[in-house]
Amino acid sequence: MPRKVPPTREGWYALHDFRTIDWNAWRDAPERVRTNALTEGTEFLQAHENVIDAEDGSSAVFSVMGHEADLLVVHFRPEMNDLDTAERAFERTGFADFTERTDSYVSVTEVGGYTSDEMVKDPEDIEDTGMARYVASKLYPNVPDAEFICFYPMSKRRTAEDNWYDTPFDERAEMMSSHGEIGKGYAGKVTQIITGSIGMDDFEWGVDLFSNDPTHIKDLLYEMRFDEGSSRFAEFGSFYFGRRFPPEDLPAFMSG
Amino acid sequence: MPRKVPPTREGWYALHDFRTIDWNAWRDAPERVRTNALTEGTEFLQAHENVIDAEDGSSAVFSVMGHEADLLVVHFRPEMNDLDTAERAFERTGFADFTERTDSYVSVTEVGGYTSDEMVKDPEDIEDTGMARYVASKLYPNVPDAEFICFYPMSKRRTAEDNWYDTPFDERAEMMSSHGEIGKGYAGKVTQIITGSIGMDDFEWGVDLFSNDPTHIKDLLYEMRFDEGSSRFAEFGSFYFGRRFPPEDLPAFMSG
Amino acid sequence: MPRKVPPTREGWYALHDFRTIDWNAWRDAPERVRTNALTEGTEFLQAHENVIDAEDGSSAVFSVMGHEADLLVVHFRPEMNDLDTAERAFERTGFADFTERTDSYVSVTEVGGYTSDEMVKDPEDIEDTGMARYVASKLYPNVPDAEFICFYPMSKRRTAEDNWYDTPFDERAEMMSSHGEIGKGYAGKVTQIITGSIGMDDFEWGVDLFSNDPTHIKDLLYEMRFDEGSSRFAEFGSFYFGRRFPPEDLPAFMSG
Amino acid sequence: MPRKVPPTREGWYALHDFRTIDWNAWRDAPERVRTNALTEGTEFLQAHENVIDAEDGSSAVFSVMGHEADLLVVHFRPEMNDLDTAERAFERTGFADFTERTDSYVSVTEVGGYTSDEMVKDPEDIEDTGMARYVASKLYPNVPDAEFICFYPMSKRRTAEDNWYDTPFDERAEMMSSHGEIGKGYAGKVTQIITGSIGMDDFEWGVDLFSNDPTHIKDLLYEMRFDEGSSRFAEFGSFYFGRRFPPEDLPAFMSG
Amino acid sequence: MPRKVPPTREGWYALHDFRTIDWNAWRDAPERVRTNALTEGTEFLQAHENVIDAEDGSSAVFSVMGHEADLLVVHFRPEMNDLDTAERAFERTGFADFTERTDSYVSVTEVGGYTSDEMVKDPEDIEDTGMARYVASKLYPNVPDAEFICFYPMSKRRTAEDNWYDTPFDERAEMMSSHGEIGKGYAGKVTQIITGSIGMDDFEWGVDLFSNDPTHIKDLLYEMRFDEGSSRFAEFGSFYFGRRFPPEDLPAFMSG
Repeated sequence: MPRKVPPTREGWYALHDFRTIDWNAWRDAPERVRTNALTEGTEFLQAHENVIDAEDGSSAVFSVMGHEADLLVVHFRPEMNDLDTAERAFERTGFADFTERTDSYVSVTEVGGYTSDEMVKDPEDIEDTGMARYVASKLYPNVPDAEFICFYPMSKRRTAEDNWYDTPFDERAEMMSSHGEIGKGYAGKVTQIITGSIGMDDFEWGVDLFSNDPTHIKDLLYEMRFDEGSSRFAEFGSFYFGRRFPPEDLPAFMSG
Repeated sequence: MPRKVPPTREGWYALHDFRTIDWNAWRDAPERVRTNALTEGTEFLQAHENVIDAEDGSSAVFSVMGHEADLLVVHFRPEMNDLDTAERAFERTGFADFTERTDSYVSVTEVGGYTSDEMVKDPEDIEDTGMARYVASKLYPNVPDAEFICFYPMSKRRTAEDNWYDTPFDERAEMMSSHGEIGKGYAGKVTQIITGSIGMDDFEWGVDLFSNDPTHIKDLLYEMRFDEGSSRFAEFGSFYFGRRFPPEDLPAFMSG
Repeated sequence: MPRKVPPTREGWYALHDFRTIDWNAWRDAPERVRTNALTEGTEFLQAHENVIDAEDGSSAVFSVMGHEADLLVVHFRPEMNDLDTAERAFERTGFADFTERTDSYVSVTEVGGYTSDEMVKDPEDIEDTGMARYVASKLYPNVPDAEFICFYPMSKRRTAEDNWYDTPFDERAEMMSSHGEIGKGYAGKVTQIITGSIGMDDFEWGVDLFSNDPTHIKDLLYEMRFDEGSSRFAEFGSFYFGRRFPPEDLPAFMSG
Repeated sequence: MPRKVPPTREGWYALHDFRTIDWNAWRDAPERVRTNALTEGTEFLQAHENVIDAEDGSSAVFSVMGHEADLLVVHFRPEMNDLDTAERAFERTGFADFTERTDSYVSVTEVGGYTSDEMVKDPEDIEDTGMARYVASKLYPNVPDAEFICFYPMSKRRTAEDNWYDTPFDERAEMMSSHGEIGKGYAGKVTQIITGSIGMDDFEWGVDLFSNDPTHIKDLLYEMRFDEGSSRFAEFGSFYFGRRFPPEDLPAFMSG
Repeated sequence: MPRKVPPTREGWYALHDFRTIDWNAWRDAPERVRTNALTEGTEFLQAHENVIDAEDGSSAVFSVMGHEADLLVVHFRPEMNDLDTAERAFERTGFADFTERTDSYVSVTEVGGYTSDEMVKDPEDIEDTGMARYVASKLYPNVPDAEFICFYPMSKRRTAEDNWYDTPFDERAEMMSSHGEIGKGYAGKVTQIITGSIGMDDFEWGVDLFSNDPTHIKDLLYEMRFDEGSSRFAEFGSFYFGRRFPPEDLPAFMSG
């Protein structure tokens, strides 16, 4: 018999669009081309932060550390179509000429119901207004107002000894609850957005952590790693670390 | 002694052809070249959806989310040769100039006989007309009329503790049956096409799921993951998620 | 003490040369260049099928399905040097300009002596003329006259629980014999060439299967997968599936 | 219940920036372009070794052995922003035209408190002046004055049998202490800088070893590999080995 | 307590420099450029085989089978610096324009003292002149005078059940001795050079085997694979197989 499946509720779809800059092409481009690229790039980013492309949602752009990517553009939108459109709209800009897609993540905001069936109701139907607001903030998230972002995809392990999906519901619920407790210890320091991606991308979840201090993110993840839900059951993909900048700073970003 | 092998029946051969668009080249191309590319690309896609290249079959094109691919063209055809021809015919179009092959999957539609020997007969020889129609729809599939597609390849695990191929036939049959029950719970919401690929590609099966709601696909796969056939025995490859568009919308797709 | 090593006999060396076509370059090339490329490519393939480059051997060319390769050229030759020369001779042709090497496999035909010491004698010294002919056909193979080829490399597993090389000789011999029995069930349908590659390439063996029906190859491999020698001990690399064509059809192949 | 988490203290952020040289472009470049590239490259390296870009920190450049990289530029800086700026400032130089980023590592210097709570205090608050100086040298490191560097990332294993994060604190502390003892045996021969990278990069730590004799580094790592903390619990990434050169030797480095 | 560490002695540093030829560029290059490239390439190879670049050492060049590389240049030199210089000196030649680095290995010749403390003394201090000569030949190797080379990197396994580094010294010594016995059985047929690479490259050792008959190398490695030191404890990287040629044959090599 299959193990009991936790109920989930989904909200906005999410696209994490990672790009490297082709710095050699940038240095070699004529001033006119660069100016045009910056104008179109900034306009794209501003328009999407202002969500003029869809009924609702939120977007942000980050400078990414290291060689895997230079830019991360995150979009949350009500429909999968909105993401498809946003991804291709970027390619129409002259700025895209100087970028290369190196990674991406497709997912949908998710609230899980391991600890409360109330959590997975439509926020409008949740009686407790605090919980309703909390759930709404997870399903229809504004990109938190913080300097740094950490993104990573993850799956739950399925080895013979440590098989999350073959673990009784109650044990899983307890581990999820313990993880939640650790998260609460960082309230006000680290904000988290969870998206589910089963069927949409290679891992099962995508995690965004936001903070004004990189070591808060490190501390939170280190503490969680000693918790059974991570120590025994987490399989991580690549970790990306970035710094948010307002779209109008794109020229400053590109000039080094 | 080898474990008992389930009977299978094969139908049409399948090619999943994943391509990225070279957006930089596209932006830089003269209008005349782009117009010609769109004409030839649309003609190729229309001709193959209309199956003018073979005696029978079906084809469809999808816009793929994320950086791994921009386009997925799926072909089902009676002969392996038909796929070989279709793959190379695409390259003759001016549109192919703006695409790069990033992934592909070669397989053949398959019906398995774990639960019924009747299932693996030639549909014309199956007495139960409902089953005959069902089997025919799996072996000679029309691409379902749905907005979204999810494709992933998978194999069955062969570790010391969780070895599918070293599990008694009856236990395997029971797990396959349990998987089938979950699938039935999504009747009308998610349509599935299974292709086998042992000897033809790197994994053992390719799975296509079609739905008008991305979360239905996510729900189905999440539920299955807690089922023993997946939790203990599934090894997944990459997941692709796409949105179907009619060939005549290729120009709209390319303009963002 | 080391486990007992099975005797082997080696014959001709084998090169599997996988190449993709640069279709964009091909479409853009002037007619004169294409004509010359086809002439030189066809001449190379014909010369090598006729083995004018060495004292003995056999060669064939295949159209490969999917994005990993478009062409597979297989050479069997008495000396490793012959393969080294053939590989570089291809690069001298104008046709090579339109190809890129994406994979390859270097190995040597091998007959193993798990079940009979007679098998690993020089065929000329084997008394049973039927066996002598059989062994000679494995060591000095003509590429079988069949439409389809399946190639994959494999190794034997060495985990703590399923360690082929730490299994007693008799058990290994029994498993090899069981595999052989399955193969015999496909006599007349599927022909097999086994090459060993320990020290020569990344896996331990390379396997070629030839058939006029792709599903025969799928059936054979599926049946073997339930046999202990595969279910517990096989580690597979990539699977390639191709269709043979005569060298003089290279122009037809290139025109789609 | 989660296992006890060791306290840590973080200091300067660290960027390891690995680059290959595009030697073909270099050979083909006009003398004037090369001269300018060398001037700008040397200026960048000198400015960063002199830390004119931030309030504090240290930097160094190394010639890397093997094909994975030709250059490693290491920066330690007080703020993550400083690294972001340094990474992009390099791209503004004409020298960057001849380099390609092939790897990188983002992390932060870390002192762990497995063996002493005193160790993770602000060095200014540590009473023992020897320990205060030691901790300060680990958190705010000068790049040691040694000819060779070895860099590698690592994580602690989390398999069912060897799960570092599910091991009691005392056992972990003992293993860390044993590792420390081995390190002390190489005092004066090998200097070590540890950076933590949970949430910042794909592994959990980055390790730099500095020495004037490559075999001292090899000896130290070989000895540690037999220690339980490594033999059972270490998962290593790629190893890089480099040789330091002063920025003003960049022209000599580039001329072979 | 850490397991007992075997003593080792190191000799010359080793660089294995793997390169592919850009055959398309070669075919397209003007005769004058090709002639110059061959002259400079040959001069580089001759100079390094004659070791005019360092106080001592040996070098050789090989034609590599398969697509991963076309050329392997091996250098043994007294100092790590010598290798760094040799690697970059190659890039100064016009021949390098037609090559791309695809792999490399950095290591140092190593003699291990599992079976005899005498073995790891400075050869000049070893009383037994036979052993002294043997050790010297391993630490300061001439590239053996044989037609074929096989190179592969390897590490010792550290799983829970098969953990080399957590195995008692005596058992390890016995396994090393057994491996040595197998090697002795190939005396006169296969010559071996062992280099250690802990801290210098991704695996722990690099192995070179030299022989005039490819099947001798295959036989030796197959026999060893059934020996516990390999069957339970070896983790292999990629295998390369090449054929030596004298530097003055570079033009012949390049003309196919």
